[in-house]
Amino acid sequence: MSLVDKLKWRYATKKFDNTQKIASEKLGYILDAIQLAPSSYGLQPYRILVVEDPIVRERLKEASYGQTQITDASQLIVFAVETNINEDFVKKYMDSTAAIRNIPRESLAGFEGMVLGTINSRTKEELTTWAQKQAYIALGVLLAAASEQSIDACPMEGFDAARYNDILNLTEKGLTATVITTVGSRASDDDYAQLAKVRRAKEELFIHV
Amino acid sequence: MSLVDKLKWRYATKKFDNTQKIASEKLGYILDAIQLAPSSYGLQPYRILVVEDPIVRERLKEASYGQTQITDASQLIVFAVETNINEDFVKKYMDSTAAIRNIPRESLAGFEGMVLGTINSRTKEELTTWAQKQAYIALGVLLAAASEQSIDACPMEGFDAARYNDILNLTEKGLTATVITTVGSRASDDDYAQLAKVRRAKEELFIHV
Repeated sequence: MSLVDKLKWRYATKKFDNTQKIASEKLGYILDAIQLAPSSYGLQPYRILVVEDPIVRERLKEASYGQTQITDASQLIVFAVETNINEDFVKKYMDSTAAIRNIPRESLAGFEGMVLGTINSRTKEELTTWAQKQAYIALGVLLAAASEQSIDACPMEGFDAARYNDILNLTEKGLTATVITTVGSRASDDDYAQLAKVRRAKEELFIHV
Repeated sequence: MSLVDKLKWRYATKKFDNTQKIASEKLGYILDAIQLAPSSYGLQPYRILVVEDPIVRERLKEASYGQTQITDASQLIVFAVETNINEDFVKKYMDSTAAIRNIPRESLAGFEGMVLGTINSRTKEELTTWAQKQAYIALGVLLAAASEQSIDACPMEGFDAARYNDILNLTEKGLTATVITTVGSRASDDDYAQLAKVRRAKEELFIHV
């Protein structure tokens, strides 16, 4: 089945089968996809929390308007962005680039200057928004990879980020929760699975120039 | 080849082969993927411009720091978000949902109230940022689908959005350019294709809870 067919198969799963756990190799696969997701300058200004602990998830459910997907799905994945995107962060990335590519650190000076120029021209709030957008690319890639593997998902913005930051100790790690998704298997009686997909018609979505 | 293998194959293509056009059925396929991308409440608060016109692309290249991908790739795809996300926009979406699902319009009153509650609690600027995040999900899905089809891409934030809005008459359409990507085929001499991919190590990216 092609990815497009899989995207037709998927839907925002409202009710998960809480007896079904994703096989560990499949979970590893979708985490690989997140790791490979592109981001601006390749910076990946985020960390990904894979939450399985039932007690933590119970607390997170309360911070998510009681949505049962949080506890019933196989895993909850939290995209948390870096709140300290600064010269140190960029320096570390350049060190890593030089090491992975086995090139002299100095050869990255031009690229580093360009990235720092972008970083330094933005306020802390703008940098956070920018980092969040990158996290949404990773979310899109994850949802595609999960669909490919017949893993159900429910991406969500409906949660209290401040409470998530507290429960997951994100603030002290220099992170803030941005968007979440649950992954697992749809319950056989999730009525939402039967609903026709609503999408803007091609002529209302695309403009050909 | 799995999607993860394809994500390893892809890279931000710096030099496209300007003699290669994407076959129309493949272009249709990746547009299908964009159309199917999920978004908050399913609203899809964006439109997608597929730019082929060489004269327009020449102007857009000037508004993109002269980056040659803009003119050399097979197509330039511009994600432009709605700047008028209001009650009318939501109403139209609910009308469409009722029609597609063949359900009474009144049955959507609760859902509509919830969406309007979200919309009305946000400033115009916050709504635009929110819409942009949704566009980035679609970008992620598109990049996955393009990779699957062995289509090269170069997603870019380095362009002058105000000039794009002007050249593409977006402001008068209630849109603003947010992020772009070129799609096509890598040139055989694009040195960037040979560089090792730099990604955060798993232990620096994932946190297991």
